[in-house]
Amino acid sequence: MLRILLSTAMLAFLCLGSAWADDDLMRRAKAMFQPIPDTPPVLDGNPATPERVDLGRMLYFDPRLSKSQLISCQTCHNVGLAGADLQEVSTGHGWQRGPRNSPTTFNAVFNVAQFWDGRAQDLAEQAKGPVQASVEMNNTPERVMETLASMPGYVEAFKASFPGEEEPLTFDNMAKAIEVFEATLITPNAPFDQFLKGDADALSATEKDGLRAFMGKGCASCHNGVNLGGLGYFPFGVVERPGTDIMPEDDLGRYQVTATAADKYVFRSPPLRNVAITQPYFHSGRVWKLRDAVAIMGSAQLGIQISDEEADQITAFLATLTGDQPEVTHPVLPPTTERTPRPILD
Amino acid sequence: MLRILLSTAMLAFLCLGSAWADDDLMRRAKAMFQPIPDTPPVLDGNPATPERVDLGRMLYFDPRLSKSQLISCQTCHNVGLAGADLQEVSTGHGWQRGPRNSPTTFNAVFNVAQFWDGRAQDLAEQAKGPVQASVEMNNTPERVMETLASMPGYVEAFKASFPGEEEPLTFDNMAKAIEVFEATLITPNAPFDQFLKGDADALSATEKDGLRAFMGKGCASCHNGVNLGGLGYFPFGVVERPGTDIMPEDDLGRYQVTATAADKYVFRSPPLRNVAITQPYFHSGRVWKLRDAVAIMGSAQLGIQISDEEADQITAFLATLTGDQPEVTHPVLPPTTERTPRPILD
Repeated sequence: MLRILLSTAMLAFLCLGSAWADDDLMRRAKAMFQPIPDTPPVLDGNPATPERVDLGRMLYFDPRLSKSQLISCQTCHNVGLAGADLQEVSTGHGWQRGPRNSPTTFNAVFNVAQFWDGRAQDLAEQAKGPVQASVEMNNTPERVMETLASMPGYVEAFKASFPGEEEPLTFDNMAKAIEVFEATLITPNAPFDQFLKGDADALSATEKDGLRAFMGKGCASCHNGVNLGGLGYFPFGVVERPGTDIMPEDDLGRYQVTATAADKYVFRSPPLRNVAITQPYFHSGRVWKLRDAVAIMGSAQLGIQISDEEADQITAFLATLTGDQPEVTHPVLPPTTERTPRPILD
Repeated sequence: MLRILLSTAMLAFLCLGSAWADDDLMRRAKAMFQPIPDTPPVLDGNPATPERVDLGRMLYFDPRLSKSQLISCQTCHNVGLAGADLQEVSTGHGWQRGPRNSPTTFNAVFNVAQFWDGRAQDLAEQAKGPVQASVEMNNTPERVMETLASMPGYVEAFKASFPGEEEPLTFDNMAKAIEVFEATLITPNAPFDQFLKGDADALSATEKDGLRAFMGKGCASCHNGVNLGGLGYFPFGVVERPGTDIMPEDDLGRYQVTATAADKYVFRSPPLRNVAITQPYFHSGRVWKLRDAVAIMGSAQLGIQISDEEADQITAFLATLTGDQPEVTHPVLPPTTERTPRPILD
């Protein structure tokens, strides 16, 4: 009888415990993560006027920013593919392959810095990189300016977007317009956002177990905040260095920015928003299955063996980070004129 | 006095003559050209249900139809660039350059056949070409089907677009969906359309002079109908063969389709809708200035020297063929899954 009473008490305790655990889970999650806001964040010194956002959208989609006039921001950050290109590494001018996997532009505005090594402090600084990188768009600021200045549609759009400026058509303003457009590429309303806003039923039991494991195992140490990542720099392979098939030896990560020995193989922790639909994974893009990436992170970063069940649960949780994808109207671009520099393919 | 009277009479006659000429111009133009309709044409056996148009839009924008997963219909037929790529010839898989200038998809539904040599009888047949061409998307129907079948979003979309079909997900249906989407890419309401619909003031005096010359010199013999071209096949250089810089000797045109000697260097007369914003010109894409193209047509096709003034007028008239560009929402594409074939870059 005592045994039955005890059992009943234990059962009640366990049920209560489970209820507490769920409450506790939401409370702890709220302390560590924030939902994607429903509207784009305001950028310091870069007001999101409709004119400027529209100009940024034009520039984002315009392949004439590249030397070949074949490659645009959209090429590697496809708004139909969650802001990425779903390639191991990106392909640019002359079919050259770049060194790293294309990070998504979606929600990138919430990252502390841009690129895998954080070498650009914001999206405006970032935007200037690929335009000039020889393996990407392979252009020069001078030629980009000559191109934009050759099209009355752009001249007018820069004037309207940067009113009162004596010389609105500048490379810096091009980058600012792209930044303000990219800031609109946010994906609110993921199941996990609904959970963070108080809807306990937004996650299934398995997804909650995944969230518990994600926080309990230590994943959230590097993957927290609005983007579950993107906020700090960490060595890849802090406990156990992955094989060179996953972490190529010649990519020294943030060391290439800081030249500090401690930054060798250090990367910005990737944001995990929409991670289930932005494969492949890691800066090398060498891992295609999210579940494999989860297991690798366990051994490489945490020095633990994540069980099959936990890997399934964490993978299920990560899929709850897929939010509403932005609907973007493709811009009608200003026509090329006789003064527009011609594409150079070589 | 008689002289004054005569002069007044002559003046009155000339004014009347000019008025007649304008009336006559519109009447003659209406007999030779038709305006772009405001709504897409109905396709035989391919109903434009919203589901099917949406599916076609997804396919048009999806680079995963290509072997590299980098090239989509949109790459060479950019909806922001009047349905073309503004390149001499298109660049495809492995940065290979194709043999010909990319024809616009805008208003292409009104052409009698597709491609410069008319080798596809409609847009559905056309759509299957670039997907498989080794210098373009370099894929196989089998691999395309495997790719589409790997994504539940596509499986559902094909079901909804081809209801009642036992096997909705086929290569043929892919082509039909693309066709029905492409048929929505029309550009009505150009100044010339307004003129054809009765608004005599829609064209300026110079543009009307251009239209007069365009009809009077014989351009309209090959460039008539809704698209001012795209309806028949004609030898390039019928009177005087242009230099090989403009007409490369190794491209035999329609001969490659019919193997008939008379079809050597025969091409479908290009449609001239939006021609002012779809440079460069000719199947070789070797001529960048519309005015130069007009002059070359005079000597090559008509055996006449078009005067500078006439070339200016005709060029001004051709610019009135630029219509309202379609506003296309970029599709959110179905996510890649673990069953999706991976991109092959080599």
